[in-house]
Amino acid sequence: MIDVSETLPSITTIQQFLSSSPTSGAISTFTGITRNNFNGKTVTHLSYEGYIPMAIKVLTSICNDAKSKYKTVDKLVAVHIIGNCPVGAASVIVGCCSPHRREAIQCTEYLIDELKGRVPIWKKESYVGDEDNAVWKENVEWHDGRRRRVMVKGEKKKNDDKK
Amino acid sequence: MIDVSETLPSITTIQQFLSSSPTSGAISTFTGITRNNFNGKTVTHLSYEGYIPMAIKVLTSICNDAKSKYKTVDKLVAVHIIGNCPVGAASVIVGCCSPHRREAIQCTEYLIDELKGRVPIWKKESYVGDEDNAVWKENVEWHDGRRRRVMVKGEKKKNDDKK
Repeated sequence: MIDVSETLPSITTIQQFLSSSPTSGAISTFTGITRNNFNGKTVTHLSYEGYIPMAIKVLTSICNDAKSKYKTVDKLVAVHIIGNCPVGAASVIVGCCSPHRREAIQCTEYLIDELKGRVPIWKKESYVGDEDNAVWKENVEWHDGRRRRVMVKGEKKKNDDKK
Repeated sequence: MIDVSETLPSITTIQQFLSSSPTSGAISTFTGITRNNFNGKTVTHLSYEGYIPMAIKVLTSICNDAKSKYKTVDKLVAVHIIGNCPVGAASVIVGCCSPHRREAIQCTEYLIDELKGRVPIWKKESYVGDEDNAVWKENVEWHDGRRRRVMVKGEKKKNDDKK
């Protein structure tokens, strides 16, 4: 199950999908939700933006890599929101099922690590009292001792219009 | 959230509980479901049996240990079914939330490992065409290179009555 859209599938839908593999005894999921703070600032909400066909292509590639790496894993889920995401709401859910638990948990960790490092989706954080200076966040990730591709999106600020 | 009962909380209830921590950005869950096979035999269903107050006491102790070990983890879930559990249904769900993903995932793995090794709940597997010889399964777990407590429950077989 791969999806990039303004409305994520519910956790119930995802769990039912992963439970439908009769040879699997283990389901592992990871959900990323919007925190209410970053570096001491109060976050009001996040926005995500990306070119959906490319994001889906990369998610598909990550799932294929995961299947090759974790042979016993059966079904996989990787879904990411586009658009606004208030505090406490899910922006990303990954997960999988396998006969035994170790591979399911390790594969889920692999999925979220790869997603954070590879999927071209940008995150904009908006802060309380500072709505005009929302910032597009780069995706800073370390992997196997090296820094992974960092995505930074420039934005024309309102003040720039006056120059 | 700790529970041992014939009806587990839904995954939606659990996810909502874990999402209610505004400082957390990461939710990790693990669900154990009944597989349709074991050692080449077709499993029809599992049954779980245990002394509920003792099981809850051990689950509480495991959650306290997890909170000590993973300091940033906020809310935790550990629920286990008692009674019948058909193929594809959840018998156990553990999970937690934390500001960042690594601790959430590691803590979830710790919770399920400790639960499998310490909680005094016995599992009975029933096989297709062999219902009279359902077996109580011991809980065989390896941890830190050593075998954890193994729980075996004896059962008087029907044939024994004829002797």
